[in-house]
Amino acid sequence: MNDLKTYMKAVSEATEAALNRLLPPETTYPPSIHSLMRYSTFAGGKRVRPCLIMASFEACGGTFGDEHALLACAAVEMLHTFSLIHDDLPCMDDDDFRRGKPTAHKAYSEALAVLGGDALCIYAYECLGSIGRADVVVEMSRALGTGGMIGGQVVDIESEGTQATRQTLEYIHRNKTAALIRACVRIGAMLAGAPGSTVERLSAYGDFVGLAFQVVDDILDEEGTTEQIGKDAGSDREKGKVTFPSVVGMAQSKAYAKDLIDKARREAAFLGDKGQILADLAEYIRVRIS
Amino acid sequence: MNDLKTYMKAVSEATEAALNRLLPPETTYPPSIHSLMRYSTFAGGKRVRPCLIMASFEACGGTFGDEHALLACAAVEMLHTFSLIHDDLPCMDDDDFRRGKPTAHKAYSEALAVLGGDALCIYAYECLGSIGRADVVVEMSRALGTGGMIGGQVVDIESEGTQATRQTLEYIHRNKTAALIRACVRIGAMLAGAPGSTVERLSAYGDFVGLAFQVVDDILDEEGTTEQIGKDAGSDREKGKVTFPSVVGMAQSKAYAKDLIDKARREAAFLGDKGQILADLAEYIRVRIS
Repeated sequence: MNDLKTYMKAVSEATEAALNRLLPPETTYPPSIHSLMRYSTFAGGKRVRPCLIMASFEACGGTFGDEHALLACAAVEMLHTFSLIHDDLPCMDDDDFRRGKPTAHKAYSEALAVLGGDALCIYAYECLGSIGRADVVVEMSRALGTGGMIGGQVVDIESEGTQATRQTLEYIHRNKTAALIRACVRIGAMLAGAPGSTVERLSAYGDFVGLAFQVVDDILDEEGTTEQIGKDAGSDREKGKVTFPSVVGMAQSKAYAKDLIDKARREAAFLGDKGQILADLAEYIRVRIS
Repeated sequence: MNDLKTYMKAVSEATEAALNRLLPPETTYPPSIHSLMRYSTFAGGKRVRPCLIMASFEACGGTFGDEHALLACAAVEMLHTFSLIHDDLPCMDDDDFRRGKPTAHKAYSEALAVLGGDALCIYAYECLGSIGRADVVVEMSRALGTGGMIGGQVVDIESEGTQATRQTLEYIHRNKTAALIRACVRIGAMLAGAPGSTVERLSAYGDFVGLAFQVVDDILDEEGTTEQIGKDAGSDREKGKVTFPSVVGMAQSKAYAKDLIDKARREAAFLGDKGQILADLAEYIRVRIS
């Protein structure tokens, strides 16, 4: 796993350099919103989504650090940050802290947090558009819309405090988290010019990894330390959030996560040595709970 | 102006048919957000932005009702609706009514209004992406971001209750309203395959029309009837909004609007007969205040 850590560090640094280049400086008029956009985008985070884009891109023959792949890496972090800023709003999850720092609406204002999230979404599309690949714009939109991330967020909020079924739980996690992760893997392959059949096989990997990622997040919310997860443990439970441990129990959640990770590793195997980083990324998720 | 009315009705009907086809039915899971998206998108409105896209597209040799142009028309209405939904939120302008109907957060909930706005923005990009023109995605993003619409909204909110300068006022109006209108005119020309020089000349027309549009809106907020403007007259003043009449006075605002409209008409003249609808659209704005 040492190789993976080095890889993740390299992608993280390259993505942050791209973000720093692409986002307007804090001094650009009007300064308040540019300050907020940088504050939230550079608030930490492991940059897992850019790693998936770059690993998939390389597995399909792309070169590490390619300009188009980096634009996609920066865009997906902007989109992820946009979703977190809006998720934290008082009318949504009402979170005051994220990764130990005040959330955007606490550090700035609610109005600026709404607009800052909007602006990050729009900038992300400007980056994706500047790659010159309209198909990537469509792919990302499908993962983000009401048939993906936003749909998952709606059902997540509407299920709070209810006794949700396993089916609802799967819907939320597949859409709220896994859809964007799956899109990262697909877009990496698309940018490398992979044939449709390869993109489809990588989709299956992305599905398993994406769902595993969220199941592990649910487990860590119950069992992780504040340092590990960047927020108070048990906060999902306090909010009456629908989580895997709350619906199927902790033991079954862990077994499910491990099964998903095994399946993801097997899917990555068709790429041979080229799929090693993708297999390691799946394993990296398991390590967080073992 | 009879021709223009017929034209506007035809574009409006074609755009609404496209919106109806592109937006998921209300029954699609999760139904609440799809209901909200349709509620706000079909809340009325003159579809001026689609008219500008289609008129520019035709002026540059495109055919009325072309599928790609209609995708752009639907996308810009989704984007305009997204901006209105977020603008109306309690943390922003806190408006309970728009065009005589409860605003999205009143009719549904604040959380759904945030997510519904986000989803309309994302769907709009899916439409633009499906045209297959990444340059149109970039063009639209530049008009919407912090160097355009969002930037204008930030300064608008931050200037409330202050004694703004003429310079700040122009910044707000050029960015909050005119940038998107200018993009419509440019995108219509780009989709028709117009050369760069034509796109630039149409940009100047779009600048004048866009700014005139907002100056007239400010005038109507003071002098118009509730029926004419779809909200209570004088609401900008009550909120301490920076408007042209509040900064330069009513007489000078009217003179400025008329000057902008004359300039727009002159810019459209280089297109000859083909620019007639664009010239009429500029005139249509004048009629609203005379």
